[in-house]
Amino acid sequence: MSDVKKAVLAYSGGLDTSVILKWLQDTYQCEVVTFTADLGQGEELEPARAKALKFGIKPENIFIDDLREEFVRDFVFPMFRANTIYEGEYLLGTSIARPLIAKRLIEIVNQTGADAISHGATGKGNDQVRFELGAYALKPGIKIIAPWREWDLLSREKLLAYAEKHGIPVEMKHKQGGSPYSMDANLLHISYEGRHLEDPAAEAEEDMWRWTVSPEQAPDAAEYLDLEFAQGDLVAINGKAMPAHELLAELNRIGGKHGIGRLDLVENRYVGMKSRGCYETPGGTILLRAHRAIESITLDREVAHLKDDLMPRYASLIYNGYWWAPERRALQALIDHTQQTVNGSVRVKLYKGNVIVVGRDSKTDSLFDPTIATFEDDAGAYDQKDAGGFIKLNALRLRIAANLAARRGK
Amino acid sequence: MSDVKKAVLAYSGGLDTSVILKWLQDTYQCEVVTFTADLGQGEELEPARAKALKFGIKPENIFIDDLREEFVRDFVFPMFRANTIYEGEYLLGTSIARPLIAKRLIEIVNQTGADAISHGATGKGNDQVRFELGAYALKPGIKIIAPWREWDLLSREKLLAYAEKHGIPVEMKHKQGGSPYSMDANLLHISYEGRHLEDPAAEAEEDMWRWTVSPEQAPDAAEYLDLEFAQGDLVAINGKAMPAHELLAELNRIGGKHGIGRLDLVENRYVGMKSRGCYETPGGTILLRAHRAIESITLDREVAHLKDDLMPRYASLIYNGYWWAPERRALQALIDHTQQTVNGSVRVKLYKGNVIVVGRDSKTDSLFDPTIATFEDDAGAYDQKDAGGFIKLNALRLRIAANLAARRGK
Amino acid sequence: MSDVKKAVLAYSGGLDTSVILKWLQDTYQCEVVTFTADLGQGEELEPARAKALKFGIKPENIFIDDLREEFVRDFVFPMFRANTIYEGEYLLGTSIARPLIAKRLIEIVNQTGADAISHGATGKGNDQVRFELGAYALKPGIKIIAPWREWDLLSREKLLAYAEKHGIPVEMKHKQGGSPYSMDANLLHISYEGRHLEDPAAEAEEDMWRWTVSPEQAPDAAEYLDLEFAQGDLVAINGKAMPAHELLAELNRIGGKHGIGRLDLVENRYVGMKSRGCYETPGGTILLRAHRAIESITLDREVAHLKDDLMPRYASLIYNGYWWAPERRALQALIDHTQQTVNGSVRVKLYKGNVIVVGRDSKTDSLFDPTIATFEDDAGAYDQKDAGGFIKLNALRLRIAANLAARRGK
Amino acid sequence: MSDVKKAVLAYSGGLDTSVILKWLQDTYQCEVVTFTADLGQGEELEPARAKALKFGIKPENIFIDDLREEFVRDFVFPMFRANTIYEGEYLLGTSIARPLIAKRLIEIVNQTGADAISHGATGKGNDQVRFELGAYALKPGIKIIAPWREWDLLSREKLLAYAEKHGIPVEMKHKQGGSPYSMDANLLHISYEGRHLEDPAAEAEEDMWRWTVSPEQAPDAAEYLDLEFAQGDLVAINGKAMPAHELLAELNRIGGKHGIGRLDLVENRYVGMKSRGCYETPGGTILLRAHRAIESITLDREVAHLKDDLMPRYASLIYNGYWWAPERRALQALIDHTQQTVNGSVRVKLYKGNVIVVGRDSKTDSLFDPTIATFEDDAGAYDQKDAGGFIKLNALRLRIAANLAARRGK
Repeated sequence: MSDVKKAVLAYSGGLDTSVILKWLQDTYQCEVVTFTADLGQGEELEPARAKALKFGIKPENIFIDDLREEFVRDFVFPMFRANTIYEGEYLLGTSIARPLIAKRLIEIVNQTGADAISHGATGKGNDQVRFELGAYALKPGIKIIAPWREWDLLSREKLLAYAEKHGIPVEMKHKQGGSPYSMDANLLHISYEGRHLEDPAAEAEEDMWRWTVSPEQAPDAAEYLDLEFAQGDLVAINGKAMPAHELLAELNRIGGKHGIGRLDLVENRYVGMKSRGCYETPGGTILLRAHRAIESITLDREVAHLKDDLMPRYASLIYNGYWWAPERRALQALIDHTQQTVNGSVRVKLYKGNVIVVGRDSKTDSLFDPTIATFEDDAGAYDQKDAGGFIKLNALRLRIAANLAARRGK
Repeated sequence: MSDVKKAVLAYSGGLDTSVILKWLQDTYQCEVVTFTADLGQGEELEPARAKALKFGIKPENIFIDDLREEFVRDFVFPMFRANTIYEGEYLLGTSIARPLIAKRLIEIVNQTGADAISHGATGKGNDQVRFELGAYALKPGIKIIAPWREWDLLSREKLLAYAEKHGIPVEMKHKQGGSPYSMDANLLHISYEGRHLEDPAAEAEEDMWRWTVSPEQAPDAAEYLDLEFAQGDLVAINGKAMPAHELLAELNRIGGKHGIGRLDLVENRYVGMKSRGCYETPGGTILLRAHRAIESITLDREVAHLKDDLMPRYASLIYNGYWWAPERRALQALIDHTQQTVNGSVRVKLYKGNVIVVGRDSKTDSLFDPTIATFEDDAGAYDQKDAGGFIKLNALRLRIAANLAARRGK
Repeated sequence: MSDVKKAVLAYSGGLDTSVILKWLQDTYQCEVVTFTADLGQGEELEPARAKALKFGIKPENIFIDDLREEFVRDFVFPMFRANTIYEGEYLLGTSIARPLIAKRLIEIVNQTGADAISHGATGKGNDQVRFELGAYALKPGIKIIAPWREWDLLSREKLLAYAEKHGIPVEMKHKQGGSPYSMDANLLHISYEGRHLEDPAAEAEEDMWRWTVSPEQAPDAAEYLDLEFAQGDLVAINGKAMPAHELLAELNRIGGKHGIGRLDLVENRYVGMKSRGCYETPGGTILLRAHRAIESITLDREVAHLKDDLMPRYASLIYNGYWWAPERRALQALIDHTQQTVNGSVRVKLYKGNVIVVGRDSKTDSLFDPTIATFEDDAGAYDQKDAGGFIKLNALRLRIAANLAARRGK
Repeated sequence: MSDVKKAVLAYSGGLDTSVILKWLQDTYQCEVVTFTADLGQGEELEPARAKALKFGIKPENIFIDDLREEFVRDFVFPMFRANTIYEGEYLLGTSIARPLIAKRLIEIVNQTGADAISHGATGKGNDQVRFELGAYALKPGIKIIAPWREWDLLSREKLLAYAEKHGIPVEMKHKQGGSPYSMDANLLHISYEGRHLEDPAAEAEEDMWRWTVSPEQAPDAAEYLDLEFAQGDLVAINGKAMPAHELLAELNRIGGKHGIGRLDLVENRYVGMKSRGCYETPGGTILLRAHRAIESITLDREVAHLKDDLMPRYASLIYNGYWWAPERRALQALIDHTQQTVNGSVRVKLYKGNVIVVGRDSKTDSLFDPTIATFEDDAGAYDQKDAGGFIKLNALRLRIAANLAARRGK
């Protein structure tokens, strides 16, 4: 264990990563660099600096970075171009943040001359995989310290004892048993796992949810939004252009107010077990519906179907931690290629948990042509008689097979 | 045209198919057999008999069949085993009824010794394809008469003139311009197309919707349902077992009351154009969510992902009219094979347009094991250290590639 | 029929297209532009000019173009980047030439101010689809005249009678019953269909084959070739760089000498029937094997598998005539993206019909690392103990399911 | 380590597994049960019994089973129904044997009351994964001892030293450096890896190959075979019905004589690295070609394409060791469903390494109809004019897009 000289730790400033910080110093006798990212989780980050200093971290070894814009622009939005959902439900709010953290950890490794990274993800979850696959893909010789897989502090009690022994401040809530949930938040979502949710038959408690009101508590009046897209990405809300992360924050604010984006599901982890998770993704839920709607008038049918066929695979890649893998990049090349024409606007109505698409329009790229689709066109763009041949040839193989079956008395 | 002796017509009793009936008699000089199906569209069918008699159809040539149970049991439920949705949104309510009508048309052809079938679907839509592919697959030598592709009554005015000339009763609504929408209904859904919906940017009018109240008008109190599944099919609601079609009707009733299942979208037709459609699928919307939920605890991860990967293709097959094609049957063999363990119950909460899964349970087939998934198991079922090797080997190819890139200074 | 003023005809100079030329002049009373392409089919093209002049075609309306380089560089090679084969066997030699002809037809339409194109493909084959889908995709308002679907010259006898009546020279072979096969040739292959091949149980006759000797007649000495690839495309043979079409011609020459690339199969046409075809693709057969071999050391596993999963779909798109469709372009974006690292050389041995890959090497992009793969590395790049964790976690879902089954006594 | 009481060892009788046997006895102090399978590898198995007895294994703990028929009937043939090839080349000869060995190991565990299994696969290869995934899927609580991942005998020298120290007989070839290749054989194939093959650029040496003559040494006269299939499985050769394993053995004999089935490739292992392998699969190579050929006339186009689309995934499942996983079973349900009509016979010509399909026929299930496919049918089964409508509607989306592009001046 003595071969690590300097480790960059993904440090939130909370109890767990503070214990890890101390444990790294003691066990590996190594210099620790802390990295704290603002991904829009809605917490003050400066306290992390003060805590790190108390552990003797050198000021130049404390990194606190605002990654919000990069996060939404280069990770969330590219993912939404594919209408990505995992297992039919999950919008991948946690999964999509991990590759950015891995990237930044390695950048700091390169900048500080560190030889290892460390993180607070447990040995049972997906996040360890996502962090570490990303780190290995970006720096193949990196050493990775995953304390939860190494140490013996495998219960809440042992962790608290270690903290007290080493003078690490423990907040009252931890002493009282800690939060009833394991949570993760960033600009795309907040998630809840564990404890009270371990029985998949039991309804989540109302006071668990933090970002959204319940549909029951949402306003009685619906609200309409006009969402404008350029090359598949959201660029303006109600005519107001903003940077990517501000757009998503605004969608979160409005969606949360209307009780939008709660999700309660059982998902399949990459490490092999099922787990129950609850998620709030207000902005993402609106964005997904709206993106599909703008694609519905601007994408060719077969391109849309190709994307739909590939989407579950793309979603699994992100869920499993393969953002930085070449197969994800290859799929992204296809997806991005298709988004050139995805330009226009979508009108959605938000009401007590509902996201209702009520209109979609594209001045430049609409493939919707009412003169062809409707019953009585007769401009001659479409000759109904053509359909006879179309059906006849598509039926030919079925007829040949049926003829054979008939001859054989089947 | 004189080579048709007896044609079975899919006959609703409405204006269009009445005109077709007359037109067939006049143009083909053939005997006409009428077939009217109860698929749960919620209309009286006996008036169709009276009308047919007026056209001189022999009583033994008038078929009025209640197909509701067969429809839900053998078509709707098998489709829902695959969590089928077309283009991310549409629950295929119209598509799934067509193969049953085709099957019954051919059965009546065989029973009556007819040599042709006829239907009222236009030359621009999907339904002509679905009817005809089904008919050809089941009776390859069948003659098919699609009047909309043959005649010159290609406007509402011409149709009305023909009706009046031939003494076909025209209801007031038709004289006043007809319904503003083209509609189709069965136990799974009701659909709206055309007229007011031809501008995809314009919101549908509230008074269009027939089966559901608006979320705004739905009750202020949520309602919970317990849905029980056996081998992937719904078998009971709140503990009460019913035949398939009664279950779906009950879900429609409850869902409609709570404003559930409205959909407004632009879809890609098989014949090549985009079209705007609005749908109400209250029961199906609940069923889809609940089926995914029971699968979430009873299906293996890779089986679930395989199903997700194949679902869009399966949906397109049904949408395009290939229910009776061998590739649909082959996919169904796979899907049905996976449903053996899909047993258990799901609890959903319905509230103002929302279907919220709040719990899922399976006494016999749950693969959810909280002792493995949770943070502090320590029963030893899962050794966190294993994750290190898992990640290392999954990362190996990424590291080799990164090493190569590093050596090349990329 | 009188609304066509000028039609561009894909004109080979042979009997069929000469009859079409005359028939167009007579039936449509339109000016005809002839287009004859050199795709490496190995025939003199200048006689086509003389014949066209005899039909009164103006010199400026006669186009004879050498498209060989464009054909191989922009169509054949991009297709081979995907290791494309249709239905497990066919290398798509005919299919890949059609989109280029369609493109050039439309270019000539635009250049000459024509309003229609015409071609000699029959109404039963794939080529009509390929020509016409391409033409419509590139010029949506183009008129297309497909004489075989319009006229009544639907037998060889009628065609010959028409030719004689109009003074079109008929070669002796046609009078004697014509070639026993319908053939098509270009730099990628020559194909044979029809007549003697209509019984799929009957062996093709030895004297049918034109480009290759039989394996029995091939040299007794094997020949080795070194094939060099850059970004997935062949760039040199035995160290000698050449333009794309010369490389393929050289591979054809060598492959043909060694009896390589004969194929006898039954394929499924897009228009719905099965047909028997025989093909000689000597160069393409070598190229396919070699391309796979260079990919085997330069492509990441998951990228290679992604390509393999998508290949049949990509092959069907090309077979069915969708080269110019947006979904083909989207797939090409993915495929081309993956070829950046496909650089290196492959050594093949050719012997009496066999293409044997005996070595592959890449100075810059090899992901093959013998120190990791072999039994006794011990440089520590790979810790065998990691495999235990890898297996354990991959087995977890299987074990949970087996535990459940055991508890239930299954 | 002391918690294992009785272990079932996959025992070949060779040096490696003999060392393992001794090592298990010494290290785990456990009773050892030996299991030696006849999979058609062509070696005497009784010597394994004598050796086991020398190690003190009780006679009732020595299992020597002839699994040849089960192997071919229940594993090889089902796999060939899918036309399975991994990475475009490899016929999975090793992969497909492992699940049967895993199954038999667990059967013997259950029969003898053992609590562990052990095998001689290394920590770098795929076979450890295949054995262990199979074992875990069939008996989730089984203990698995993989000596190569545990012990320190990680070089040939250490292994030999251990053998000599414990009186394990070492054959001369091992003392002289051992075989230059790591080999595996069963009725489907023989494989070679390692040593001389570690340079992927170097040609394999001629004297490596054991089952086939070189094409150069093969007879100068071709040989024809008639292969009869029933429901997708080979049932007779030249009219002679035999059990599955005898059919494959016969194909191996004939194929080997004609130099058929050699393969030299670089493959991607599941554990993450590339490796070079050479294979001889004479019978399988013939079988694959013939099975595709019989499918070419008996399978519907879309069913065949569905199978082609899924094949790479199915191949990866088998390669990676997931034979006993539910997703493989689900795919098998689909595959087997499609084979009901795959009945008939195929004629192949074998000549110096070439397998040439020259004819295919099915009395009962041929979908090939020359009256439809050929140029001059005119029985009216196919109306060429239908193709116009078919093309028009398939082109519609392309034309709409092209119109839009034209309007925008693109």
